[in-house]
Amino acid sequence: MKHIEGGICAAKGFKASGIHCGIREGRTKRDFALIVSEKKAAAAGVFTQNLVKGAPVILSMQNLRDGHATAVICNSGNANTCNANGMEIARGMCELVNRHLGIDPEDVIVASTGVIGQEMSIGPMAMGMKELVDALDDTPQASKDAAEAIMTTDTKLKEIAVEFEIGGKTCKMGAISKGSGMIHPNMATMLCFMTCDAAISPALLQKALSENVQDTYNMVSVDRDTSTNDTLTILCNGMAENDEIIDEDADYEEFKKALFECTSYLARATAADGEGATKLIECTVTGAKDKATAKTLAKSVICSPLVKAMIFGRDANCGRVMCALGYAGVPFSVKDTSVTLRSDAGSVLVCHNGNGLAFDEDRALMVLSADEIYIDISVGDGEGTATAWGCDLTYDYVKINGDYRT
Amino acid sequence: MKHIEGGICAAKGFKASGIHCGIREGRTKRDFALIVSEKKAAAAGVFTQNLVKGAPVILSMQNLRDGHATAVICNSGNANTCNANGMEIARGMCELVNRHLGIDPEDVIVASTGVIGQEMSIGPMAMGMKELVDALDDTPQASKDAAEAIMTTDTKLKEIAVEFEIGGKTCKMGAISKGSGMIHPNMATMLCFMTCDAAISPALLQKALSENVQDTYNMVSVDRDTSTNDTLTILCNGMAENDEIIDEDADYEEFKKALFECTSYLARATAADGEGATKLIECTVTGAKDKATAKTLAKSVICSPLVKAMIFGRDANCGRVMCALGYAGVPFSVKDTSVTLRSDAGSVLVCHNGNGLAFDEDRALMVLSADEIYIDISVGDGEGTATAWGCDLTYDYVKINGDYRT
Repeated sequence: MKHIEGGICAAKGFKASGIHCGIREGRTKRDFALIVSEKKAAAAGVFTQNLVKGAPVILSMQNLRDGHATAVICNSGNANTCNANGMEIARGMCELVNRHLGIDPEDVIVASTGVIGQEMSIGPMAMGMKELVDALDDTPQASKDAAEAIMTTDTKLKEIAVEFEIGGKTCKMGAISKGSGMIHPNMATMLCFMTCDAAISPALLQKALSENVQDTYNMVSVDRDTSTNDTLTILCNGMAENDEIIDEDADYEEFKKALFECTSYLARATAADGEGATKLIECTVTGAKDKATAKTLAKSVICSPLVKAMIFGRDANCGRVMCALGYAGVPFSVKDTSVTLRSDAGSVLVCHNGNGLAFDEDRALMVLSADEIYIDISVGDGEGTATAWGCDLTYDYVKINGDYRT
Repeated sequence: MKHIEGGICAAKGFKASGIHCGIREGRTKRDFALIVSEKKAAAAGVFTQNLVKGAPVILSMQNLRDGHATAVICNSGNANTCNANGMEIARGMCELVNRHLGIDPEDVIVASTGVIGQEMSIGPMAMGMKELVDALDDTPQASKDAAEAIMTTDTKLKEIAVEFEIGGKTCKMGAISKGSGMIHPNMATMLCFMTCDAAISPALLQKALSENVQDTYNMVSVDRDTSTNDTLTILCNGMAENDEIIDEDADYEEFKKALFECTSYLARATAADGEGATKLIECTVTGAKDKATAKTLAKSVICSPLVKAMIFGRDANCGRVMCALGYAGVPFSVKDTSVTLRSDAGSVLVCHNGNGLAFDEDRALMVLSADEIYIDISVGDGEGTATAWGCDLTYDYVKINGDYRT
């Protein structure tokens, strides 16, 4: 699929902006973002399954019930979660959009990310709203500004845009996302905002999105901590002028491909940019009895602190991988299991028929010195295959989270 | 309950020893341990639920089927797991006991701990067996030698012994244990060997042990990695001459109290000595709708890498605790939840009615500077209460596990 510039501003009729309004004292980073569609859009979202939900999550779920939305507003620096005035602030953010742009507050998706349980005031946002609206633009830079404004401990800006064709019409889809710590999406990632100019019914849009995350964001883990604010939303404003997708036909399949291209790219980028991470880990399990089993096994491996620390230390310790498979809680044939560690620098088979193998330590060290490490696991001759993404566990993860608030 | 000296040698009729036989080249630490009862003993065990089980675990489960055992043999330095010749070596270890002490090999419990998937030879143990048998003694030092011989990355020797009375007879119970990394017992801990001179039927002994671990070792987690070799066993040789416990009567209750005194002490010590740990975390949840709910909530908190890193960093971040409660997967009332951080230095309420509170940062820092941190959580007015033990996540955990094998 063709990748293009522009992020969330690539699709027709979308503008974005990101400014610094001062949510956290002493910080000068952009912390306030806005995305607006020229026309009301079909909209869908998936949200955290954490029982402790941020007020913005609860409000966005309500506002998405009718399958439509026009704007997304988001702040970083405070998660607006476990705050006595949380719902008041989330509603206030939608009101700001209404006051400055005339958009119905119920057509606004709201999100917040940052510290949980910290007092919060609408003040800085109310003061900054005019500047945020004035900065709205449809340029690639505007998408980058918004992407920067939603970052917290992320070290890399995450955006993507693709071009595809539906019924002879050129459509574009773009996304920005953030997520670095507290990443173990269960339903969605920390924050991912997508825009698209294809026309699609809200029901099919939600279906495509809900299915999509099962193989993309829900297969990512940085630290097994499912956030309170995970939000993935998409607005489709139909301005590409394709015939609206209302059936699960070839057009729908094409749309799903574009969706997968964007979310799988960003999910992988989220793992690679895990807090403190120096290496991306991609674990693929093949030969499981079914896909669900393969997914559970792959996720158990990338979640294991011991596997994560071993990848950081470039130590080809197959016992860590076998142990993590063993406690995954799903059946597989230990005696048919093989494990290969692989990277651009080569590969080394460390376990065969369930038993550890002697291997060339120098070669293993070379393989594990790359930035992206693949753990290929075969557990038999079943049909089930799955891939999960994680990152190594480093001193910096401890450092970042030992003193997150200050 | 009265604590006494002597560890596993405190109970009548038990001898132990621990020597260096050279399992891992270049190491001089004791690595080979033996415990022998003068009389065949009622015996019980609980073992790892990891699907990838060490050969010694499989063999010990077989040997315990008849409810009796006479000796325990254990090596550290190699887990004898994922080895092609694993069962041969485990059987060989039992044979060594038979050859030197005339004990039926099926009355031997065997255990191994160390690297998984590394080639192993019976050679060093066969060479060292005579020295190990010659060193058998019933002194407190002999228990310490055995305790040291089963340690891997542990920094502290773990042993305990208690005295109690059953039917007018003085009974003694003792234990040694190890466990530092790959600790998330599900059925048992890494390794814990217990001895007791009370007389009890094998069936009741197994029942008491299986119930006991649910509230002790199974409530400990260092890194959520359930080991392949977890083993907790107890030998009761009856030499205290009490009437054999064959009913769930007052004597059985007294026996269970002694068991709890020993295992809860060692479970807590295991958490405190987690790999790289600088602080013990004890999380108690009260007010849950039932005990199972309370256990799941408490365990979710002590398992959270973010909570663990925050305790290391002495950062009173209530959001981390609320988040971990929220994704535990069990219902509770967020709006009735309060969180207090406590230590010998005082306490600070950081969350009330589900909302974060402003608090004195200096006071919080003082509270979190202690070595043992208590996280007290109330989630309502239910009857369910539970305690779980963990430790902080530190640079040293990453260091130890980035380069475990070498």
